[in-house]
Amino acid sequence: MGREPHGVRNHRPRDAERSSGRLPDTMRALRKVRQEPGAELIEIRVPRPGAGEVLIEVEAASICGTDLHIYTWDQWAAGRITQVPVTFGHEVAGYVRAVGSEVHHLRPGAFVSAEGHVFCGFCPPCRRGRAHICENLKILGVDFDGGFADYLVLPERNAWEVDKRIPPEVASIHDPFGNAVHTVFSGDGASELVTSTVVVLGCGPIGLFAVGISRAAGARQVIAVEPNEFRLGLAKQMGADVLVDPGKEEPVEAVLAATDGHGAEVVLEMSGVPKVIDQGTRMLARGGRMSLLGLPTELVALDLTDQVIFKEARLVGVTGRELFRTWQQMTTLLATGMVDVAPVITHRFRLNRFEEAFEVMASGRSGKVILTP
Amino acid sequence: MGREPHGVRNHRPRDAERSSGRLPDTMRALRKVRQEPGAELIEIRVPRPGAGEVLIEVEAASICGTDLHIYTWDQWAAGRITQVPVTFGHEVAGYVRAVGSEVHHLRPGAFVSAEGHVFCGFCPPCRRGRAHICENLKILGVDFDGGFADYLVLPERNAWEVDKRIPPEVASIHDPFGNAVHTVFSGDGASELVTSTVVVLGCGPIGLFAVGISRAAGARQVIAVEPNEFRLGLAKQMGADVLVDPGKEEPVEAVLAATDGHGAEVVLEMSGVPKVIDQGTRMLARGGRMSLLGLPTELVALDLTDQVIFKEARLVGVTGRELFRTWQQMTTLLATGMVDVAPVITHRFRLNRFEEAFEVMASGRSGKVILTP
Amino acid sequence: MGREPHGVRNHRPRDAERSSGRLPDTMRALRKVRQEPGAELIEIRVPRPGAGEVLIEVEAASICGTDLHIYTWDQWAAGRITQVPVTFGHEVAGYVRAVGSEVHHLRPGAFVSAEGHVFCGFCPPCRRGRAHICENLKILGVDFDGGFADYLVLPERNAWEVDKRIPPEVASIHDPFGNAVHTVFSGDGASELVTSTVVVLGCGPIGLFAVGISRAAGARQVIAVEPNEFRLGLAKQMGADVLVDPGKEEPVEAVLAATDGHGAEVVLEMSGVPKVIDQGTRMLARGGRMSLLGLPTELVALDLTDQVIFKEARLVGVTGRELFRTWQQMTTLLATGMVDVAPVITHRFRLNRFEEAFEVMASGRSGKVILTP
Amino acid sequence: MGREPHGVRNHRPRDAERSSGRLPDTMRALRKVRQEPGAELIEIRVPRPGAGEVLIEVEAASICGTDLHIYTWDQWAAGRITQVPVTFGHEVAGYVRAVGSEVHHLRPGAFVSAEGHVFCGFCPPCRRGRAHICENLKILGVDFDGGFADYLVLPERNAWEVDKRIPPEVASIHDPFGNAVHTVFSGDGASELVTSTVVVLGCGPIGLFAVGISRAAGARQVIAVEPNEFRLGLAKQMGADVLVDPGKEEPVEAVLAATDGHGAEVVLEMSGVPKVIDQGTRMLARGGRMSLLGLPTELVALDLTDQVIFKEARLVGVTGRELFRTWQQMTTLLATGMVDVAPVITHRFRLNRFEEAFEVMASGRSGKVILTP
Repeated sequence: MGREPHGVRNHRPRDAERSSGRLPDTMRALRKVRQEPGAELIEIRVPRPGAGEVLIEVEAASICGTDLHIYTWDQWAAGRITQVPVTFGHEVAGYVRAVGSEVHHLRPGAFVSAEGHVFCGFCPPCRRGRAHICENLKILGVDFDGGFADYLVLPERNAWEVDKRIPPEVASIHDPFGNAVHTVFSGDGASELVTSTVVVLGCGPIGLFAVGISRAAGARQVIAVEPNEFRLGLAKQMGADVLVDPGKEEPVEAVLAATDGHGAEVVLEMSGVPKVIDQGTRMLARGGRMSLLGLPTELVALDLTDQVIFKEARLVGVTGRELFRTWQQMTTLLATGMVDVAPVITHRFRLNRFEEAFEVMASGRSGKVILTP
Repeated sequence: MGREPHGVRNHRPRDAERSSGRLPDTMRALRKVRQEPGAELIEIRVPRPGAGEVLIEVEAASICGTDLHIYTWDQWAAGRITQVPVTFGHEVAGYVRAVGSEVHHLRPGAFVSAEGHVFCGFCPPCRRGRAHICENLKILGVDFDGGFADYLVLPERNAWEVDKRIPPEVASIHDPFGNAVHTVFSGDGASELVTSTVVVLGCGPIGLFAVGISRAAGARQVIAVEPNEFRLGLAKQMGADVLVDPGKEEPVEAVLAATDGHGAEVVLEMSGVPKVIDQGTRMLARGGRMSLLGLPTELVALDLTDQVIFKEARLVGVTGRELFRTWQQMTTLLATGMVDVAPVITHRFRLNRFEEAFEVMASGRSGKVILTP
Repeated sequence: MGREPHGVRNHRPRDAERSSGRLPDTMRALRKVRQEPGAELIEIRVPRPGAGEVLIEVEAASICGTDLHIYTWDQWAAGRITQVPVTFGHEVAGYVRAVGSEVHHLRPGAFVSAEGHVFCGFCPPCRRGRAHICENLKILGVDFDGGFADYLVLPERNAWEVDKRIPPEVASIHDPFGNAVHTVFSGDGASELVTSTVVVLGCGPIGLFAVGISRAAGARQVIAVEPNEFRLGLAKQMGADVLVDPGKEEPVEAVLAATDGHGAEVVLEMSGVPKVIDQGTRMLARGGRMSLLGLPTELVALDLTDQVIFKEARLVGVTGRELFRTWQQMTTLLATGMVDVAPVITHRFRLNRFEEAFEVMASGRSGKVILTP
Repeated sequence: MGREPHGVRNHRPRDAERSSGRLPDTMRALRKVRQEPGAELIEIRVPRPGAGEVLIEVEAASICGTDLHIYTWDQWAAGRITQVPVTFGHEVAGYVRAVGSEVHHLRPGAFVSAEGHVFCGFCPPCRRGRAHICENLKILGVDFDGGFADYLVLPERNAWEVDKRIPPEVASIHDPFGNAVHTVFSGDGASELVTSTVVVLGCGPIGLFAVGISRAAGARQVIAVEPNEFRLGLAKQMGADVLVDPGKEEPVEAVLAATDGHGAEVVLEMSGVPKVIDQGTRMLARGGRMSLLGLPTELVALDLTDQVIFKEARLVGVTGRELFRTWQQMTTLLATGMVDVAPVITHRFRLNRFEEAFEVMASGRSGKVILTP
């Protein structure tokens, strides 16, 4: 089967579902069964791929902050997850085991990583080439069954074939790594990096990836700001040139000192903390940009006149990853070894030890935590 | 039926084919039956839409230069059209009359215009957001049955719902109008137009559209270069500020004279004539760009050192239209009346008078020629 | 005297100061003499142009909101104007009457408009090509003597030779018109306009210009939001498609209603009112940009998570004008008649009637107010 | 003396010429005295800096291909050098020893590298922010006395203060290194590099720098094409992933083989050989760009239809360096060690051994050749 344009009737054999070997009837899945804290690892039927869909056997799935919200069932989760039971987990990689009709590209046996944003293709943002901010997005592991399971079903076009040089557990973190790549390149892209001091505010896994990506893409100087000593150590391993512990020094002053008073041309906000966002604007150089990925849970008060308007600065909202330009960028960065994510992957658990995994996630002394079936 | 993301199995009812009223069994279609000059209007079965496809009842179809190549069966056509019989025609608009399974957006009754480039969605250009230069393109009316017929089948995503303010015959020319829009905006886009003299080299229909679009998008000055007096008159109607007949004045000198010797910041090459392309480089200002849409049939010798490198000029190849940003731009330009294409649509024929239509096309004394069933 | 590169010693005759006819010894100037409300029109010596400077005889000067701040001596003025006496006024046009040494381009007799931002040329933003956000800016009429006078001195490179098609009083408003041009084009420039609904929040003179520029540069739809009925009427004259009086309808709902619920791709904030800025974010489409020119005098609280980050919106600070790309854009827009600013120029006074002029400015029933010597 | 805006009269003390210690009356200079092959090292007066100029004591000057043309007096040189005697050499670095009036930024003792393109600041490209393609350029060492001497005079704004981490001989190659940086980033800049195979056609010094810069800025893969074995070895040292000797394998096939048949997204043409330029277009991927820096001496015949238009490729002329964004980029690349140019600097001579130096340059077995006084 070659790469065929979609939907040209005369040239397309009607594909039946094809699979590589016999599939089991049931599987384990970590599910939110009731709208309350916790999750259950239960046995459910293996789903079947519909038209344009593939069935993936999970090889590795990593835990996102969002998964922790769902697990602990905080206010955000209660407002967002409207339909249970649902299998959660959206950072996932594995082998295609069966394909539905109208699948023309992927074959059973392909090793893929999941893009969890399922888009309509017809709304104005989709038609403008910005499908990751589709007006009708459905999110894997939130709006439909996700990847903390033995198998999952995904639209073919959301399954990215992984470069063979990238190992499975690294493949499972394309989603957050893609957040970081998209954030780093979200201004005018990499060109400005070469003349920029890049500040990363908050060094959770995505912040740590952003440090490594900024370093690899040629930033003039990378400054990591993070109060957690364990994470600040990881930032150093990822290539940060300057480490700032905001408990020990005032971060705005630290950045100005490191830039001869000019400020940073690029600030990547990964903390979601209002006070930190305000500080981010104050450390920006004239003409600089601050990309916002961290999600504040309250209103953020900013001094727009002096910190944004007179500086002609830009505040750039960032969500998801560009479909699929960011995936092409990730392939280079991960497959060539330009960014080594090994230091960030700190823990690995079997799926049935999920409770320990979530505990480690909540501890603050972890990078990425990987689950394997 | 709402706008649903593609391929999320649990949330999607399995659509059967739906149609608005009973469809006839057969229809007329203008077909290239043998690999030789001419075409036949014959009766064939009405096609049925497959998965992800729609059936369109043609309301208007316009003739492209490519169709004339196919009709007269020149060298290009002989090398390109490998499979006959095939219905040709790709500039087409009409009503959706039936939809196949997996169609989630368009409903019978929708009025649509055809994007004739059917793309795979998986090759590197597609994944980079540049589907119009897909490595596996199939072209409507060339690689599969086109629109000089009562009905045609098209992938849903290639059917653009037309703004209600746009009349059917204008809807049928989205394809060439889109070539012009894409060419005009192919450099850094419209921003540079406001500080640019725009030269349009060759005023066939696409060149004429380009004159009108450049005028509407705020070009400092629009210069039309065209030896055919009839077309030069149309260029004036479309808003050209300066008309140059290269039989009467040397075009490079004329452009330099009209720009105080600085040259034109934007040159849009629509002729495909090697000598004209060379002239285009010579009339370019420092830092200018020449967008190339016309297709030369032989090698083109250029003075790269003085006309491109020392000027830091750009030569930009242009083909098709951006999917689907150009369509959004067209909607504004056509629906708001910013560009009035009426002067360019010079002839209309019923489908059965196709021979006269192709004669007019070949005469040089026509703009767009429209066929209606 | 031709256009010579600056500073190549061997090729440059040492220019003495040259002037066109004899200059008077003294002139009138409207000056802030003491750090308190009001201003005095007094007789002072005509300044002499230094190296690289020109002496301009004022033909027309218009009053900016900043001038009103200085005149009424509000908190901002008290904090900003550190040195008196100073002649104020920075929106000014007139004839070059004398040139200092090292002036190689302008000749006495040239008609010029003033770019009031005097830049150093050596700081990082200047070296990056963004001189309008120079770290060492000096502002005409604020940091050194301005244009509410018979003559002023300006660096040659800050004197823009005005296209002959532009009349003197229009020439005097290049400064605020340039703010508007720069704001309209401050995202990805004009390309996005063609697919955008543009909302202008606040229709003072710059907002009114922005309406006209957006209309001329091909916006899909222009919506003006303004509580002052007089100004809303001017917005209609400048080409607004939709008028919204926020006293009568909720502006966010009005914009959503006018855009089928998608929101506006471009919002231009000209009011500086915190509540309006917040509304601006709520009416933004996914992927949209809000350009901020109005200057809030207090902190602004924003819902970054839902209105900026998940939408992947951009907030773009805007100040001044690009040196000198914006001036090239203005030349097209004003000289070709694409934007007619006549409706916005509502009042004209002789310089000695400055008190009436400032009263009209403060009344809210004026557009631009022009002073002529 | 601080960084003061240029030309604000009231705030500027009138600077007399200042120097650091006593200067000699005469100096040695390598001059083209007659319009014929060769050059003479003769004693001439030390020049004095005029207004806005600085006097630089040369620490290192490197030989450019252009200097070899001037030295051997080929056809290009005979047509270009209209005024003799002239000191040549334009790749030069040294210490500021004296400054003229109107110099507000640099002080005696500063270590600077020369930007040899002296621009007018008033023509349309200059006003557009593209001074390096000024319509009135004067070139150091071509149009006025250059740097193969003990001292030279330069406009202050053309003297770039060198980061202290960069050694003098590296400082002297900013000019060609800047050509390479500007070429690498001449498309959409560095963003596209991360998803691109970059091919460098021709590995003279600028090509070798381009290999290193592409590698440092994150290219997916760098392919060097060069028939000279010595230079191909240097390309490997600079970080090329694939080496192609066109005498041994067909370069278009080699590039297609290394890119799974897709072609290279970025081709950097450094050879100026017509056949190689044609090959460059044939190895371009769809949507790719070829930047042209090498200067062909005859017309170049290209297959625009298949290799540029249908691929929607871009051919981008490149000359000089962006003033001064490229210098900011160079500072990062050279000062942080991201690019190590040491392998390219192969020879060093005292100025009086200039004949040997030019012989080595002509031999093909050299990278950069440095002259020191």
